[in-house]
Amino acid sequence: MTDVNDPGAAGSAATPVRLAMVGGGPGAFIGPVHRMAAELDRRMVLVAGAFSADAVRSREAGTAYGLWPDRVYDDYRAMMAAEAARPDGAEAVAIVTPNDLHLPVARAALEAGLHVISDKPATRTLAEAQALRALVEQSGRLYGLTYTYTGYPMLRAARGVVARGELGPVRKVVVEYSQGWLSRSLDLAGDKQASWRMDPEASGAGGCSGDIGVHAFQAAEFVSGIRVERVCADLSASPGRTLDDDCNVLLRFAGDVPGVLIASQVASGDRNGLRVRVYGERGGLDWSHESPDRLTLNWLDAPTQILHAASGYLDAGSRMASRLPVGHPEGFIEAFANIYREFAAAIRSGASLSPAPDIREGVRGMAFVDAAVRSSRDAARWTRIEE
Amino acid sequence: MTDVNDPGAAGSAATPVRLAMVGGGPGAFIGPVHRMAAELDRRMVLVAGAFSADAVRSREAGTAYGLWPDRVYDDYRAMMAAEAARPDGAEAVAIVTPNDLHLPVARAALEAGLHVISDKPATRTLAEAQALRALVEQSGRLYGLTYTYTGYPMLRAARGVVARGELGPVRKVVVEYSQGWLSRSLDLAGDKQASWRMDPEASGAGGCSGDIGVHAFQAAEFVSGIRVERVCADLSASPGRTLDDDCNVLLRFAGDVPGVLIASQVASGDRNGLRVRVYGERGGLDWSHESPDRLTLNWLDAPTQILHAASGYLDAGSRMASRLPVGHPEGFIEAFANIYREFAAAIRSGASLSPAPDIREGVRGMAFVDAAVRSSRDAARWTRIEE
Amino acid sequence: MTDVNDPGAAGSAATPVRLAMVGGGPGAFIGPVHRMAAELDRRMVLVAGAFSADAVRSREAGTAYGLWPDRVYDDYRAMMAAEAARPDGAEAVAIVTPNDLHLPVARAALEAGLHVISDKPATRTLAEAQALRALVEQSGRLYGLTYTYTGYPMLRAARGVVARGELGPVRKVVVEYSQGWLSRSLDLAGDKQASWRMDPEASGAGGCSGDIGVHAFQAAEFVSGIRVERVCADLSASPGRTLDDDCNVLLRFAGDVPGVLIASQVASGDRNGLRVRVYGERGGLDWSHESPDRLTLNWLDAPTQILHAASGYLDAGSRMASRLPVGHPEGFIEAFANIYREFAAAIRSGASLSPAPDIREGVRGMAFVDAAVRSSRDAARWTRIEE
Amino acid sequence: MTDVNDPGAAGSAATPVRLAMVGGGPGAFIGPVHRMAAELDRRMVLVAGAFSADAVRSREAGTAYGLWPDRVYDDYRAMMAAEAARPDGAEAVAIVTPNDLHLPVARAALEAGLHVISDKPATRTLAEAQALRALVEQSGRLYGLTYTYTGYPMLRAARGVVARGELGPVRKVVVEYSQGWLSRSLDLAGDKQASWRMDPEASGAGGCSGDIGVHAFQAAEFVSGIRVERVCADLSASPGRTLDDDCNVLLRFAGDVPGVLIASQVASGDRNGLRVRVYGERGGLDWSHESPDRLTLNWLDAPTQILHAASGYLDAGSRMASRLPVGHPEGFIEAFANIYREFAAAIRSGASLSPAPDIREGVRGMAFVDAAVRSSRDAARWTRIEE
Repeated sequence: MTDVNDPGAAGSAATPVRLAMVGGGPGAFIGPVHRMAAELDRRMVLVAGAFSADAVRSREAGTAYGLWPDRVYDDYRAMMAAEAARPDGAEAVAIVTPNDLHLPVARAALEAGLHVISDKPATRTLAEAQALRALVEQSGRLYGLTYTYTGYPMLRAARGVVARGELGPVRKVVVEYSQGWLSRSLDLAGDKQASWRMDPEASGAGGCSGDIGVHAFQAAEFVSGIRVERVCADLSASPGRTLDDDCNVLLRFAGDVPGVLIASQVASGDRNGLRVRVYGERGGLDWSHESPDRLTLNWLDAPTQILHAASGYLDAGSRMASRLPVGHPEGFIEAFANIYREFAAAIRSGASLSPAPDIREGVRGMAFVDAAVRSSRDAARWTRIEE
Repeated sequence: MTDVNDPGAAGSAATPVRLAMVGGGPGAFIGPVHRMAAELDRRMVLVAGAFSADAVRSREAGTAYGLWPDRVYDDYRAMMAAEAARPDGAEAVAIVTPNDLHLPVARAALEAGLHVISDKPATRTLAEAQALRALVEQSGRLYGLTYTYTGYPMLRAARGVVARGELGPVRKVVVEYSQGWLSRSLDLAGDKQASWRMDPEASGAGGCSGDIGVHAFQAAEFVSGIRVERVCADLSASPGRTLDDDCNVLLRFAGDVPGVLIASQVASGDRNGLRVRVYGERGGLDWSHESPDRLTLNWLDAPTQILHAASGYLDAGSRMASRLPVGHPEGFIEAFANIYREFAAAIRSGASLSPAPDIREGVRGMAFVDAAVRSSRDAARWTRIEE
Repeated sequence: MTDVNDPGAAGSAATPVRLAMVGGGPGAFIGPVHRMAAELDRRMVLVAGAFSADAVRSREAGTAYGLWPDRVYDDYRAMMAAEAARPDGAEAVAIVTPNDLHLPVARAALEAGLHVISDKPATRTLAEAQALRALVEQSGRLYGLTYTYTGYPMLRAARGVVARGELGPVRKVVVEYSQGWLSRSLDLAGDKQASWRMDPEASGAGGCSGDIGVHAFQAAEFVSGIRVERVCADLSASPGRTLDDDCNVLLRFAGDVPGVLIASQVASGDRNGLRVRVYGERGGLDWSHESPDRLTLNWLDAPTQILHAASGYLDAGSRMASRLPVGHPEGFIEAFANIYREFAAAIRSGASLSPAPDIREGVRGMAFVDAAVRSSRDAARWTRIEE
Repeated sequence: MTDVNDPGAAGSAATPVRLAMVGGGPGAFIGPVHRMAAELDRRMVLVAGAFSADAVRSREAGTAYGLWPDRVYDDYRAMMAAEAARPDGAEAVAIVTPNDLHLPVARAALEAGLHVISDKPATRTLAEAQALRALVEQSGRLYGLTYTYTGYPMLRAARGVVARGELGPVRKVVVEYSQGWLSRSLDLAGDKQASWRMDPEASGAGGCSGDIGVHAFQAAEFVSGIRVERVCADLSASPGRTLDDDCNVLLRFAGDVPGVLIASQVASGDRNGLRVRVYGERGGLDWSHESPDRLTLNWLDAPTQILHAASGYLDAGSRMASRLPVGHPEGFIEAFANIYREFAAAIRSGASLSPAPDIREGVRGMAFVDAAVRSSRDAARWTRIEE
C-alpha cells in the first residue's frame, strides 16, 4: 500500500498541477472520471474547462464540476489564451472530446506550452497519430494517454511476472475486450455516446477496434512485453453501420509468437470484459477486469496461485499502485488516478512517463487499427503493423 | 449511474462543506481514505487537521494531505477554536483517532457547533455511546458514522430486495467478517494499528467484536431490515491478549428469526471478508465484499440471478451509489465517498441522514458489543441487546 | 489418477464383492447412487435386493436395477436367508432405508455374517448407535458408513494439508451445510423424501441435524483432525415440524479451539452447500462442494493457492481418489465410489477401513446430534459430546 | 433428475448391450472411462476386449477390467470372429485406439455386423471419414462418436436456449479448448499418450486441431445450431513437431455470423478448458467445463442468470442428462455415460442416435481439420469447409 502520508510516495509532493479540461460536458461519462482521477491524490486540481462549444452547456458542466464561472469557457483556444495570462493558470490540459478533436486540441495545447493528457485513442487515424507524435517530440511537453487499464495494480503485477521470466519464454497471448451495449442500435436512435463512436468523421478509421480494440492491443503488449508484428483481421459491422462493431484478429508477435485479439461491442450481455492471458513455457497468467484486484497464475506443475492487490509479496511497482490494504477493493477510478499521479509526478520532476503510456503507445494503437482495417478489407490477409 | 454533471444528483450543489480532521497522522490507514472519500465528489474539502498531538508529526501529515501549514494543528481543541474564528473555517470534523478519543473529540466538536463524521465504532463502550447520543440530540448538529459497507451499491440493492419482500419473510441471517492480520502478534510487537486495537483503554470493551464485529452486526440489520434481540456469544482471545480476536455469535432477531455472526481477526489468510446472507421463504441473497459490485440471488424454483452494480434494472437508491457504467469496478473509496456525499447533502439541505448511518446505529453497535461480551463471560448465555 | 488397469491400485483385484441392497425402491434417490458407486470400479456388483416391503414395488425396482427376478425380495430377512443358501449369494448388504431400519437391518445382516455398508446417519439415536457399535465389534464383520464427502479427493487433500502441519496449529474451524429444499412444507404435502426425514419415529432425534448436520460435523473432524468436545446449539423447526430444520451451533474442539457449524434445510435457494474452512496459524483452507475438485489455501504471507484434483503435486491419498486426469471433473458418484472401493478392498484384504468411515464415526455423529438437541433444549447451554 | 428406477427413462429397459473394446491397454486413460461410462446405467456391459496387440498386455488389461480370460484377445479380428460364434457374444464395439486404427477397426466391426462406438476424431483424415460414412450408411448398423461434451446436461441446456430463440438471432460464437500438457516435449521423451498424438501416421492431418480442436468445433455447432462455412486458420507447431499444437481460427458461420475458435495443447497451466460462448441479439450464454453443472446467461437488460444442472426449470432434455438432484456434482464420466446410454437405447429401440453424435458429426470434424490445415498452409486464407 502506498502511504499517502509519505510525500515522496509517488515521486513528488509539490503544489498540485493545475489542470484544464476540454470536453466532458453534460451527459459525458469520461469527463467526470478524469476529474475524480486527477484530484484523488491532490497532485492535480481541475481549475478550468471548455466543456462544450455551447456556452450554456459548458457553464452548466462547470457548475457541476465545482469551478468558478470565470474559469469556464466555450472555446478551447480562448481558454488556453486566457489561462496563459493568469498567474494561476492551467499547466496541463485533459482532452476528453470525441476523437476528431484529439489532434487539434492537443496541437493547440502543446503550442500554448501546456502538457497534454488525452483520452484514447490518440487520434482518428494513423496519419494523425504520426503527426501528433512529431508535435509532441518538438514541443518539449509531456503527452500522456489514458490507457486506463495500465493503472491497475494487478495488470502491472502481470507485466512484472512476465518481465522477470517467471513464466518462461512467451508462447501465446490471448486478449479479449467484450461489451454488449452497441448490440442495440443506440447510434441510430441518437444516443450521443453511441453516435459519435459509430461516425467515421468523429471516430476515425476504427469503430470497436478504435474504441476498445486499442485497449486490448495495448494491454497485450504491455503485459507480454513483446510487440505485435502482423495481424489477420476479421472486422464486421452490424447493418446500418459503417464502422466495425465486432473484431476478431489473429496476431503474430515478435519471435512469431501466436496470439488472438477479440473485441466486440455487440457481445450482448457482456459488460466491460477486458481479459489478458499470457502463456509461457512454464505457466500462464490470467487477468480479468471483472475481478481486477486478482491475478491468476496457472502452473504446469504446481498449484494455481492467486495474487491479491496490495499484498506484501508483490513487487514495488504493483504495490505502489494500491492505496488501501489487501482486501479493500479498488477500481476504475483508482487505476485512472494512478496514471494521473504519474503524469503529475513527471510534470513536476521532469522525468519521463512510465509505465503510464505516452504518444508512442498512441501511435502503436492507431497502427494496429490501421493494419486491422486494411487486413479485414483484404480478406483477412496477414498485414504488418507499420508505425 | 449518477451523472455528476447533474448538480442535483445527490441533493445539493452548493459550496463544498469545509472539513477538518482529527487523527490520521503518519502511518494511519483510514485518515487518507476519509480525505479521498470526502473530496471525491467535490461536495466536501479538507481544509484543516489536527493529525497528531505531536506537532512535528501533525505538520508532516498536513503536508502530505496538501494543507497549508496554518491550518495544521497539534491540538484538536485549539483547532476548533482557531477554525471557528475564520470566515472560511471548518464546518465539520472527521474523527479518525483510536476509539478512546471518539467521545471527547465528538463532544468538543458538537460544542463548537461543528457537524461530526466519525469512524466506527462510535465509542469504547455502550455507556459512552449513550452519552454521545444525548449530546448529539441536544446539539442540533449532524453526526454521521462511517459504516463504510452501507455505501456499497449492491449492499443497498440487497437491502431493497429484502425490503420489497422479494425473498418473502426472512427466515435466517448469516453474516461473517473474517480477517487474518492479527494472527500474528503484531500488537505485542509494537505495530501501531494492532496495538491500540488490542488495548482495552484505547479500544474499549470489544477487540475484534468492536473493530469489525460491529460492521457485521450493522450490515446484518441494514440488509435484513430486522433487529437482533438476543445473542449467545463465544468470544476468545489469543494468548497475551485481553480483548477478543475471534467472535462466534448465535443471533435471534425480532420474530425469533435465527442467525449467526462470525467475526475474526485471526482467520489466517483471510483478507477482509465481509459477507452477508439473508434467507427468505422464496430465496436467499448473498453479498460478499470480495466482489462488491455483484449481488447473488438464489431462488427456490428459478435460476440464480447475479445483479451488477450500475445496471438499469436496479432501484434508484442502488443506482445513485454508482458513479460509473456497469462493468467498471468501484470499490472501498467510492463506497466511503457515498457516505460522505450523503453527509454533505444533509448538512447543506438540513435533511436527516439516511440510509447513511448515524448515532442510533452507533449506539446499537456498542449495545451489540456489550451484550456479546457479557454473554461470552457468562458461558454463552442468551443475552438481550439493550440500548 | 488411479490407473484402473493396475490391479493393485485400490488394494485388491479379486472377484467383485457381491452386494445386496435393502431399501432404494421406486422414487428413492440414494439407492441408485449406491448401486452406481458400488459397481463403478467393478470391485462390487449388486446381485440382490429387498428394495421395498411391497412386493410389486420391490420387483419394479429390481427390474430397473437390472437384477434377475429370483434375486429380488420383499423382506430383508428372507433375502438374507435365501442369499446365504446360494453359492453365489451376497457377501455384503447396503442399507439405504429410512433411519429407523438402520439398526435392525444392520443387526440382521451382521448376524447373518454379512458385511454392512450403511447410509448415514448410523441410527436414529445415540443409544441405537452405541448398541450397533457393540454388535459390530462382536461380529467380526466390516461396517462402513457412507459419509460421502470423505470420498472427495480434495477433502482428503485438505485433511492431509492439516495433518502435515502446513497450516500450523489449528485455530478455528467453520463448517456449513445449507440446503433449501425443505423451505417448502414438502413433508406436510406427503413428499416421501421429506416426510420420513421430518418424522421423529422414522428419522430419530435430529431432523436437519441428523440428516446433514452429521455430514458437516464429520467433515469438520475429518479435515481438522481434532475432536469436537462441546457444543452450544440453537436448533429450530418451522411451524408444523417437530424436528429441527435449521441448526446453528458453536463448537469447542480439543485444545479449546473455537468453531461454528451451520446447517439448514430451509436456506431457500441453497442447493447442497457443504463447505469446510480450517484456519491455522499460518493460513486457512477452504473446500466447497460447489467446486469439489478444487482446494483453496489462503496464506498469511503468500499468494493464495488453488489445488486441483488429480494433480501430480498432491499426496498419494488424494491422487488415488481420482480416476481421471486433471481438468476432468469428477463428482458425487465418484466420491461415493471411492468409499465403496475401499470397503471392497477391506473385505477382500481383511484390512481395516480407513480413511473411509466406520461405526466409530457413526457413533460420534449420533453423539453430536444428541448433544446438540440437549443443548438447544437447555437454552443453548454448553454441552459435552458423550459417546 | 432421471429416476433410474424408471425403466423407460432412457428409452429402454431391455437386457444390457454386450460390448467389446478395442484398445485401452495398460496405461491408457480413455479405455477405462469408456468401460465405466458404458456400464454406469447397466444398459451396457463390457464382455470382451482386444486391449493390445501384445497378448501379455492385453491379458493384463483384461484382468484389470474384470473380464474372464477367455474373452480377452490380442487381435481385434479374431475377437470379432470368436464373439460372433458365441450366443452371448458382443453386440457392439468400442474403439479406443490411436486414430490410425479407427477406420480399419470400424470397418471390420461393421462388416461383422457389430454396432460401433468410437472415440474421436472419427478418423485420421477427411477422406477416411468420408469412406467410413459410406460404410456406416451401407451397414445398417449404428455408429456413435464420443464427443463427450455433448453429454453434459448444461451444454444441452445451452443448445436448448439457443434453439428456442431465447438469445435472439445468433451474432457471434467464441469457443476455446486449452490444455497445457504438451507444453513439455512429452512426445519426444517417449510418453505414449503424447507420442502417437504428435505422429502424423498415427494421428492424422491435425495434431491439436484433430485431438481437441474437433471437440471445440463440434461444441460450437452443437450449441449454436448453425454451421461453420469458412475458416481462416493459424496453426503452429513447437520445434520438433510436425503436427500443430496450437490453433487459432477465425470462423464464419452460415448467415455470415463471425466466430473464433482457440485450441491449444501448449497453453501451459491450463488443464482442460473447453468453453463455449454464444451471443445473440438479446444476450449471451457461457458454458465452461471447469464448472460443468452451471450455465451462465448474460442479458442486455436483466440480471445475469446461472442455471444449475438437474433443476426443475430446465427443459426435459437437460434434466434427463442428470442422475442426481441439484447441487450434487456430476462430471466427465456421467457425461460420457449419457452418450453410452443413448447409444444403448438406440441399439435396443432401433431409433436413430440424437442428440448424441454420429458419423455425420465425425465427417464434419475431419472437414474442419482439413480446412484449417489447408488455410493455415495458405497464409490463413479463408477456406471453405467441404464435407
